[in-house]
Order: sequence, then C-alpha cells, then structure tokens
Amino acid sequence: MKEIKLIDIKQDILKENRESAEEIRKRLRKAKTFMINIMASPGAGKTSLISRTIAKLGPKRRIAVLEGDIESSIDSRRISQQGVEAIQIRTGGFCHLDAWMIDKALQELDLSMLDIILIENVGNLVCPAEADTGAFKNVVILSVPEGDDKPFKYPLAFKVSDITLINKIDYPDFAEFDLKSIRERIHLLNPSALVLPISCRDGSGIDEWTAWLDGAITAFLQ
Amino acid sequence: MKEIKLIDIKQDILKENRESAEEIRKRLRKAKTFMINIMASPGAGKTSLISRTIAKLGPKRRIAVLEGDIESSIDSRRISQQGVEAIQIRTGGFCHLDAWMIDKALQELDLSMLDIILIENVGNLVCPAEADTGAFKNVVILSVPEGDDKPFKYPLAFKVSDITLINKIDYPDFAEFDLKSIRERIHLLNPSALVLPISCRDGSGIDEWTAWLDGAITAFLQ
Repeated sequence: MKEIKLIDIKQDILKENRESAEEIRKRLRKAKTFMINIMASPGAGKTSLISRTIAKLGPKRRIAVLEGDIESSIDSRRISQQGVEAIQIRTGGFCHLDAWMIDKALQELDLSMLDIILIENVGNLVCPAEADTGAFKNVVILSVPEGDDKPFKYPLAFKVSDITLINKIDYPDFAEFDLKSIRERIHLLNPSALVLPISCRDGSGIDEWTAWLDGAITAFLQ
Repeated sequence: MKEIKLIDIKQDILKENRESAEEIRKRLRKAKTFMINIMASPGAGKTSLISRTIAKLGPKRRIAVLEGDIESSIDSRRISQQGVEAIQIRTGGFCHLDAWMIDKALQELDLSMLDIILIENVGNLVCPAEADTGAFKNVVILSVPEGDDKPFKYPLAFKVSDITLINKIDYPDFAEFDLKSIRERIHLLNPSALVLPISCRDGSGIDEWTAWLDGAITAFLQ
C-alpha cells in the first residue's frame, strides 16, 4: 500500500484569502475609507439595517454598499433607491463573499470619494464567518424570531464579530428571548464584543448602533 | 436612484479557471502525461471504475489517482491499496474540483514518472461539469439505479463528457432502463460522445472501456 498524500484545500484557500484581505485593508487605509462586513441569516434584517444606517449617516458620510447575493438583485435595488452607490456581487452559488470578490467590486468604486463601505454578506451564519473580506470590523445580526440558541450553534460568526445586533426586539417573542445568556455566551467567545438590542422596524437602538459605527470610523481616521 | 453595477463572480471565476486549466494541459502535454476527469453522482461507481482501470492498465501504464472528496478519505485508501499513488484533495465544502486545486495536487507528483492521471471528481452531476479541471478527456458515469432521466435533468455533465459509461447493467432495473432514448439524448447534447454500457461488478464492458482509454492515450502521445 502506497502512502496517501492529503491536500487540504480549505486551509490553503483561507490562507490565500487572508493575504488578499490584508492587501485590501492596506488600500482602504491609504484611501481613508472604512469598510464594515454585515453577516446574518436570511431575513434577519441586513438590508433594513443598511437602510437605517444610510438614513442616519448619509448626510454626514459618503457611503457605498456591496451587496452579496447568490442569484437575485432585489436588495441592491432597495439600497440604490436611497441614492447611494450599490454594487451587486452575484456569487453564482457561492455561500459567502471572499476577499477576491470584494477586490473585484472595489475596482468599480472611486475610494477617494467614499467614507464608508457597507458589505451585505450572503445570508447565512456559517461560511461568511470563515472568510476574511478585508473589512475593518464585522457585525452579526441575530433576529429574535431565530431564537437565542444561535451563538451556541454558530459560534464562529459571533466570535469574529465586533458587535452583535439583536434585531426585532419589538416582536412579542422577545419576552422569552434570553438576552442575558446570549450576552454571556458571546462574551465567552469574544470578551470585547458589544451586544446591542435594536429594532430596524421601530428604530430602537439605531442611534446607539450608528453612534458606535461613527465612533469606529472616527477612530479609524485618526 | 443610482445605477446598480453588477459583478457576476461565477463568470469571472469560470474564465480564470479555464485559463488555469489550459496551463495545466500545456504542462501535462510537455510531460507526456494523460489526464482524464471522472464525474458521477455519489455511489455511481467512480472508485470501482478506477479500481478496474488500474487492474487492467496498471501493468502497462504508470498511473496516479487524484481523489476529490468533501471531507473523508476512504476512496483514496481503497485506491492506494492497489499500489498506485493516490492524492486526496479534501475540498472542505466545495462541491467540485477546479483547476487551482488540481494544480496544487499535481505539484505533489513527478509527472515524468506517470503515463495517466485519473481524477475522481466530487460526487455530483452539477458543479463538476462547470469547472474545467485541465484534463484532456471527461467521463461521466450514470448508474442504472439512478434512472434514465439524468441526461435530461443534468445535460451539462453529459454534454462536456467524451464518453458516458452506463454502469450497473447487471442490476435487474436494467430491464426498464431506456438505453435507446439515453443514447439519442446524449448524441443531441454531444454528437461525438460514446455511450458504453458496463458493470464494474461483473466486469462487462470493462475491456471496451480500457481499450477506449488506451486508444485515447496512444492518440495523445502521437
């Protein structure tokens, strides 16, 4: 019996991806453009959060949005109606955005004219957490109807995120939602992570979210 | 409303992949090493076909096998027991092998010591058909229990294949299997494709298959 050689493609891909992500961060830093990556399950409120963010920060900061989608382009239409530049990245089956795709999209933008780029990653909590996009900060949205067990089931998404937004707190299910154990779990995964309850529908917590984001941009520009 | 730019990642990826595949073919041609890509659903008989091929052509040709798997490495163990070199490509979730992965695997082999490389692609009929591996010929195996509607449901796998092997013709279901309509359908998709009924269990058609493969190698070496 001959020896079997094993090639672990995933590790190789993640390593090359990390290097490309570092290149992207260098370029963005030079252009003084902040980029943030938003992850969530489908329907958790990624596009609604982006709409709220544009409404709040748009008058002050120049914003563009990169919309990751497997096939459709509904979300980017919704965003571009708010007058900001939206680039649709149709992954054609891929479950997440990687640095190579983000790099392709950034080539379509004039970075010198932008203060913030918001990435709406493909809707799931698994693959997007593994691939560094080149963003400076990661956000994960967990919506109340999804249940409070998600940080236990998908720890990586919460571990790599600087802030967890608990969305749809205006839903009646919030009464049974164990926010305390979610906070404890997230702080075990990432001690410096912020956990912020919000509602994209009624606007609760949106001021706190945009204040956090604006603060992160100000710190980045220093 | 701003204009939305669309980036079609899949087309970009397939284009880059085709270029890498051409590079691989150039390298193999220089080394006089023939490579063939085997596609099929899980359980259709890819590993059994490879075992039969090694048993038949092994005494005459120097063979290596690249085994694509999402997670496990069972198939490559089975192959290496026959004394040929086997490289396991663990894709870590990817549904097919692409030219980049094949290139990584070829770096582990001494091409000057090899006459044939057999690629066992990841088990499904969709994704593997889209990505050029750098092989000179493609084979698709359709096993009788899968049903005779597969060339209608997954036309691309049959269109890109030079030969379709209908495996498990020793199964009782072969009585209801419409070989004539399969042949017609495949010839509509690819007029020069060969359709060959075989059984990896009882050995039917294996001589015809290896004669075809040996002929393809001889033509390649001229």
